[in-house]
Amino acid sequence: MKAAVVRARWEPRATYQVSEWERATGKALNGSSVWRYPQLALEELPEPSPAADEVVIAVRACGICGSDVHFLETDSEGYMLYPGLTKFPVVIGHEFSGEVVAKGEAVQELKLGQMVVAEEMNWCGYCAPCRNGFPNHCQNLEELGFTVPGAMAERIAVKAKYCWPIDAIAAHVGDAQKAFELGALVEPTAVSYNAIFSRAGGIRPGERVAVFGCGPIGLAAIALARTAGASRVEAFEISPVRRELALRVGADAAHDPKAVDPAAILLESSAGEGFDLFVEAAGAPERTIPAMERALAINARVVQIGRAAQRVPIYLETFQVRRAQVFGSQGHSGHGNFPNVIRLLAAGRLDLSPIITARFPLAEVACAMQRASARQDGKVMVLPYQSGQAC
Amino acid sequence: MKAAVVRARWEPRATYQVSEWERATGKALNGSSVWRYPQLALEELPEPSPAADEVVIAVRACGICGSDVHFLETDSEGYMLYPGLTKFPVVIGHEFSGEVVAKGEAVQELKLGQMVVAEEMNWCGYCAPCRNGFPNHCQNLEELGFTVPGAMAERIAVKAKYCWPIDAIAAHVGDAQKAFELGALVEPTAVSYNAIFSRAGGIRPGERVAVFGCGPIGLAAIALARTAGASRVEAFEISPVRRELALRVGADAAHDPKAVDPAAILLESSAGEGFDLFVEAAGAPERTIPAMERALAINARVVQIGRAAQRVPIYLETFQVRRAQVFGSQGHSGHGNFPNVIRLLAAGRLDLSPIITARFPLAEVACAMQRASARQDGKVMVLPYQSGQAC
Amino acid sequence: MKAAVVRARWEPRATYQVSEWERATGKALNGSSVWRYPQLALEELPEPSPAADEVVIAVRACGICGSDVHFLETDSEGYMLYPGLTKFPVVIGHEFSGEVVAKGEAVQELKLGQMVVAEEMNWCGYCAPCRNGFPNHCQNLEELGFTVPGAMAERIAVKAKYCWPIDAIAAHVGDAQKAFELGALVEPTAVSYNAIFSRAGGIRPGERVAVFGCGPIGLAAIALARTAGASRVEAFEISPVRRELALRVGADAAHDPKAVDPAAILLESSAGEGFDLFVEAAGAPERTIPAMERALAINARVVQIGRAAQRVPIYLETFQVRRAQVFGSQGHSGHGNFPNVIRLLAAGRLDLSPIITARFPLAEVACAMQRASARQDGKVMVLPYQSGQAC
Amino acid sequence: MKAAVVRARWEPRATYQVSEWERATGKALNGSSVWRYPQLALEELPEPSPAADEVVIAVRACGICGSDVHFLETDSEGYMLYPGLTKFPVVIGHEFSGEVVAKGEAVQELKLGQMVVAEEMNWCGYCAPCRNGFPNHCQNLEELGFTVPGAMAERIAVKAKYCWPIDAIAAHVGDAQKAFELGALVEPTAVSYNAIFSRAGGIRPGERVAVFGCGPIGLAAIALARTAGASRVEAFEISPVRRELALRVGADAAHDPKAVDPAAILLESSAGEGFDLFVEAAGAPERTIPAMERALAINARVVQIGRAAQRVPIYLETFQVRRAQVFGSQGHSGHGNFPNVIRLLAAGRLDLSPIITARFPLAEVACAMQRASARQDGKVMVLPYQSGQAC
Repeated sequence: MKAAVVRARWEPRATYQVSEWERATGKALNGSSVWRYPQLALEELPEPSPAADEVVIAVRACGICGSDVHFLETDSEGYMLYPGLTKFPVVIGHEFSGEVVAKGEAVQELKLGQMVVAEEMNWCGYCAPCRNGFPNHCQNLEELGFTVPGAMAERIAVKAKYCWPIDAIAAHVGDAQKAFELGALVEPTAVSYNAIFSRAGGIRPGERVAVFGCGPIGLAAIALARTAGASRVEAFEISPVRRELALRVGADAAHDPKAVDPAAILLESSAGEGFDLFVEAAGAPERTIPAMERALAINARVVQIGRAAQRVPIYLETFQVRRAQVFGSQGHSGHGNFPNVIRLLAAGRLDLSPIITARFPLAEVACAMQRASARQDGKVMVLPYQSGQAC
Repeated sequence: MKAAVVRARWEPRATYQVSEWERATGKALNGSSVWRYPQLALEELPEPSPAADEVVIAVRACGICGSDVHFLETDSEGYMLYPGLTKFPVVIGHEFSGEVVAKGEAVQELKLGQMVVAEEMNWCGYCAPCRNGFPNHCQNLEELGFTVPGAMAERIAVKAKYCWPIDAIAAHVGDAQKAFELGALVEPTAVSYNAIFSRAGGIRPGERVAVFGCGPIGLAAIALARTAGASRVEAFEISPVRRELALRVGADAAHDPKAVDPAAILLESSAGEGFDLFVEAAGAPERTIPAMERALAINARVVQIGRAAQRVPIYLETFQVRRAQVFGSQGHSGHGNFPNVIRLLAAGRLDLSPIITARFPLAEVACAMQRASARQDGKVMVLPYQSGQAC
Repeated sequence: MKAAVVRARWEPRATYQVSEWERATGKALNGSSVWRYPQLALEELPEPSPAADEVVIAVRACGICGSDVHFLETDSEGYMLYPGLTKFPVVIGHEFSGEVVAKGEAVQELKLGQMVVAEEMNWCGYCAPCRNGFPNHCQNLEELGFTVPGAMAERIAVKAKYCWPIDAIAAHVGDAQKAFELGALVEPTAVSYNAIFSRAGGIRPGERVAVFGCGPIGLAAIALARTAGASRVEAFEISPVRRELALRVGADAAHDPKAVDPAAILLESSAGEGFDLFVEAAGAPERTIPAMERALAINARVVQIGRAAQRVPIYLETFQVRRAQVFGSQGHSGHGNFPNVIRLLAAGRLDLSPIITARFPLAEVACAMQRASARQDGKVMVLPYQSGQAC
Repeated sequence: MKAAVVRARWEPRATYQVSEWERATGKALNGSSVWRYPQLALEELPEPSPAADEVVIAVRACGICGSDVHFLETDSEGYMLYPGLTKFPVVIGHEFSGEVVAKGEAVQELKLGQMVVAEEMNWCGYCAPCRNGFPNHCQNLEELGFTVPGAMAERIAVKAKYCWPIDAIAAHVGDAQKAFELGALVEPTAVSYNAIFSRAGGIRPGERVAVFGCGPIGLAAIALARTAGASRVEAFEISPVRRELALRVGADAAHDPKAVDPAAILLESSAGEGFDLFVEAAGAPERTIPAMERALAINARVVQIGRAAQRVPIYLETFQVRRAQVFGSQGHSGHGNFPNVIRLLAAGRLDLSPIITARFPLAEVACAMQRASARQDGKVMVLPYQSGQAC
C-alpha cells in the first residue's frame, strides 16, 4: 500500500544526553535534539494485517497537524523542529477516519464496514496512571504517526480499544465522505474538549471565554465554547485568514494581538468584569499569559494546550487576588472526550466544516504538507481515496 | 398604588400542630394546613418608600408562577393548595422586572432609571448557611410575594442586594418593554439554572438531557440544556400546548408520558446508552423517577426541582449499578445564577420569548390568574404599565 | 493445589427468565434465582500457569466476604441467597494478598517474590465505560471468585494489571505475615474508599459522618472517615461485637439502631446542625435512609454501598430543603482507590488490624465459613500457608 | 481602653500613582508605597459601643501576624514593608478571640458572655463577588486591624455576622484561657484551610503533601494535611526552630531548603511518584515553585498562599505533562472554613497548641512585636487580660 513516510538521521546534538531508554528503544524524547535532515516520501509498504485485538482501517481522511509540519521544518543545522517523542522512520498522520476492512479474532465491538476514528494516544491500560484514570499520562505511551505507523496511508492497523464509531455522523450529514472529513476533525477537537471540560472544569453557561491562537485546536476551542453556552467568545490570532475562520466557527470577535491590547479588549467587552476561561492554543504562553492576567474575572481559569519550551513569568499575586487558576493540558483520551465530540457532531450541535480549507489526494501529500506549512489554512486534509485538489 | 393582594383566614386544620414560631410570626410553614378561603383583590396601598439599603422599583412585568395559582386554588374544605411558607395578606408576585425609581442613601451600585430584576429569595446574609455559601438555605428566609410584599403591583421596595441590572438585555433586544418581559423570566430560569448547573454539576457538551414536566421551569431547563451543549433533549409533558412550547425552546422531541413509555423512548434515542441528566420539573417524582431509573446512563444525574409531599420509591440498586446520583434543588440565589442567566439573555444565547403566551394589564390580574390556572400557557405575564390583553 | 470450590446446580426458578447471554455464558446475573443446593469443598486442582499478561500468586491471606457467606446460605427452597453475577463451580475468595511466584512474558512491572494484592473487579479496559474512566461499570466484567477462579486457594493466576504491590506495608509493619493480613483488607477498604471519596466527593475536614452497618465495609468507612478528618463519627449497628469494633477503629460512639432513634442521636451530637456524610453499609436502605433524612446537614451526602433488592421510600422534598444528595456506589477499581488505601496502611495512618478477629488455615475453610456465617466477627481470615486457629 | 495603635505618615513615593479612590478614602492599596515612619504605641482610646448589628468583644487572646510585623519594619527610606491595603492610624491585630460583652439590638445569634472568634475579612455581602459566593474577593472589603480598628486592644466592636462561637473548644479543652488561645489560631488556620480545601480541592486520603515555609500558615497547613489523611507530609523551612515545630504539628520530616534539594527529597520519599499537593507558604514562589515542578505527581496541585510581588517563572510544559495545576489563594471567609476549623479544634482532631511559643500582656505589645520580628517563634500571643511573660 501507499504511505507517507518521514525518515530522518539519528544524530544527537553534542549538547543532548541520550538516555539509555532512548538508545534501547530508538525513540527520542526530544525529537528536535536528535533527528536531522528529515525527508518525506510516498512509499510502498506491505499491507498491515490485524493482530488479535486490532482492526485494519482503510483511511478515508487524514488531517495534517502542526506537529506533522514540524517534522519537516528544520533549524539552521538541519534538526527538525518537533520537540517531542518520535521514532523514525514512521508513517505520519494521526487525525483520521476510515472504514474497518479487517479485524482480529478478539475484536467484538467493531464490524467490517464500520466507520471509525481512533485516538492517537495509544495508552497501555495497565500502568498506574492508566489505572487511576489518567490515560493521557500513560507511562508506556505510543503515539500513532510518531512512534508507531500512522494514518497518512491507505490503511492502518490500530487496536480496537482506541477506535470509536462515527456512523452516527454519517447518518446526520447524509454523506459518507463528508462524515469522514468531519470524523478526521474529532481528534484535534477532542484535544480542546479535554482541555476545556476534562481539565479546566468547563464553563457555566453565560461565562466568557478568550481563545489565544486560532489554529485548528484554537478553532475547535472557540466552537466548543459557543456550544457550551459561553455568552461571549473573543479570539486572538495573527493570521487574518484564521481570524476569519474564528468568526465562522463562533467567535464574537477576532483580533490581531499585535494590533490591539488583548486585556483592554477583554475588559471592555466584559464591562470590566474580566473573562472566565482563557484557552492558550498559541503555544506562546510567555506572551499570552501576561496579557490574560490583566483580564481575569474572579474565579477565572487558564488552560494551557499549546506546547512551548519556555518558562512563563506568571504574576501569581494576581491569581490570588482574582481567585484564579492555571491548568496544564495534554492529550485527548479518556473522560468521555471522544464520544462526546462525536455526539455533538452527529447531532449537528458543532459544525466544524468551515475549518477544512484544503483537500489533497494521498499522491499529493508533499504538496499538502507545503500548503500546511504556510499556516494560512484551517485544516488541510489528505484524502487517500479521493481525487481531491491538484497541487 | 394598585397592588394584587391575596388574603386568607388563619384556620389551622385540626390535625396540624401550629409551632410557636408560626404563632409568633404569623407565618405558616405549611400554608395548605393553615390558610383557608383565599381571595384575590386589586387594592390601593400606600406607596412604598425605600429603607437605607433598598430601592423602589416600578414594576414593568411580572410573571404568574404556579405557586401564585396554588394560593387561590383550594381543596374541598377551602384550604389553599400551596404547601409552603406563607403569610397573608400579602402582595403576590415574584417573577418580575422593572425600573429603579427611588433608592435609600446606602445604595451605591444602582442608579435611578436602571432596569433591574430581583431575587425572590430574601436571604439574610448572616446565618451560617448564608455565610457558608448556601443562600437558598438561609435560616431567616423571607420570600417576596410570600411573606413580604411582592411585585404584582405598581411598585415594590426591595433591598439593593437582591437586585441585578438587566440593561444589557435591553441593549441586545433594542426594546425596553421586550427586555422587561424577558427580565421577568430571569427568576424562573435561574431556578432551573441553579438546579442543573449549581446543584447537579451541569452537563458535559454532548451529553443527553431528559426533562419531565414542561411548565416554565421545565421549559427553561430545556432551553438551558440546549444552550449548554446537550446533544439531545427529550421532553415529557401531558399538555399538548406545552409540548409545542418545549419544541420551540429547544427540545428535540416532546412526548406525552401517558401515551408512551418514557424509558423506552430514551433508550431508543440514545442507542441503548441511556440519558445523562434528568430534570424533574413535573412535581410528580413518585411517577417520573421510576421511569428515569430504567434509562440511566452510567454516571447519570437526577435533579429534583418540582415540589411534592410524597415519598418516592427509588430503586437505589440501579443507582449503584449505573453510578448514578440524585440531587435535591431549591431556590435560585447565589452561585452566579442570576448574572449568568442575564448574560445569556443579553447575548441572545438563550431565547425564552416563546414561553410568554399571554399578557394582561394589572387591572386584569384576576383574569390573568384564571388563565394561568388552566395550565395551557407557557408563562402568563402581568404588565402593570401596559394596556395588554383584555379579559 | 488445594482450593475451596463452591458448586451448585443450575436450576432456574420457574419465575426467572434466563437470558440468552446467561445461557450462552453459563453465568447467572441474579444468582439467587438460578443456583440451588450450593456446596463447599476443598478440592485438588491443577496448578495455575500464567498467561502472557498474568502472574501467579501464592495466596497468603484471604478474607471471607459477606457474599462468600451468601453463596452457601440458602432459602427454604434451597436457592443460594447471593443475588449477583455468578458462575459455578468456582474457586471462591477475592479479598486476598500473596506473593508473586510466576509471571507471563509480557509482565514487566511485577517481580517474582513481590508482595501484592489484586482487584476483584476484572474490568476489560476496552468497553466504553472503561475507556471513559468508569471501570467499576465495565460491560464485560469478570469477578475473581464469582465468575473466574478466586483466591481461597494455594495459588491464583491474575492479570498483572489488577495487581498492586504492598511491599511498603511490610516495610512499615516489619512483619510479612501481618502485612499480608492487612493486605487482604485492602479490597474491602477500597470499596469504602471508592464510595466515600470517589463517589460522594469525600469530606471536608471537620464534617460529621454517620455510618449505618458495621460489617467490614462499614468498619473501613469509619476508619477512613476518621483518617480524613471527620470531627465526629457515629456508628449504628445491631451486633454488640461489631459496635465494639466500630469504637476500636475510630467511631466516637456506636449505637444499636433498635434501641435508639438514630436521627435524634445525630441531631443531638451535632447541636442540631445534622450530619454531612451518611454511609449506608447495612444493606437496609429502606430502613436506614428514612432515619438519615431527619438528620441531614445542609449540603449533606448519602452514599449507598450495601446492596438491597428493595425500593427505598425517599422524601426528596427534604433533600431539596437541605440541599442534599444521594450517590449509588459499586466496586473498588480505578480513581487511585487501591494505591491510596495501600499508602495509608503503609504510612500507619489507617490501622484496620482490630477488624481481623479470626484466622483459619485453608484446610479449615468450611469451619471458617461457618464462623463468618454467625456474623459476630469483624473479618474472618483464611491463611493458606499458616497453621492458624483450629476449628 | 488600652489599644495598640500604629501610626504612619502618608508620603507616597514619587514613583507611586495615588488613585482617586485612595485619596478619597485615605486607604493605600499598596501600603509600602505610601506609608512612612510607622510607629507603634499603646494608646488610651474611647470604649467602643456596638452598632445595631455589632457586638463588642473583650479580647482575650490576639496573635501577631507577619503582616503586623511588616507594619513596623521599614526599608532604607523609612517606608513600611507591608505591601497591601492599609489605612493608618489603626488599632492593629486580627487573629483573636474573646468574650461578647455588649451587643446591638439586631443581634440575635450571639449572647453576652459567649466565647467567639471573628473573621478579619469584613466582606460587604452585597457586591457581585459576595453574592456569587466569593467573599474573600469582596469589592468593598474592609479588614480588621488594617482599615478598621483591630483586636490588639482590650475591646473591639465587630459585626455579628463575622463572628463564630468557640464555646465548644472550651468544652473540649476544659479551660477557658486555653480555649481563647486556640481560638486566636482559628483565623490563620482558616487561611490554610481555605487554600487547601476551598481552593485546591483538598486531598484524597493517602496523597502526599509538601509544605514550603513553616510560619504559622505553613504550620497550620501541615497540621491540616495530617488531619485530612495525607500519607506523607514534608516540610521545608530555613529556621531550625520552625522545622522543629513542623515536626510537632505533624510533618514526617522537615528540611532546610538551603541544605538539600527539595525535589530530590520529595522524589525519594515518594518512590519517584512525586507529591500531590504543594502548599506555598513561604512567600517566595519564584524560588519554591521551580523546585516543586520537578516533583509533581500526576494530577498534582500547587496552591499559593504566601504573597510576593514577583513574577514566577513557571515551566507550564511540565504542568501539561504531569496534568498539574496552580491555584492562587487569598483569605479565609466563606465555604465553611471557620466552622470546620472550630469543629476540628473542638473535637481534638487538630492540635495546634505547640505553635504558640510566646505570650505577652497587652502592656508589653512593643516587646511582643520585637519578639515576633525575630521570626524564631511559631505564634506570639498578646493576652490583654493575662499577666503573661515579661519582656
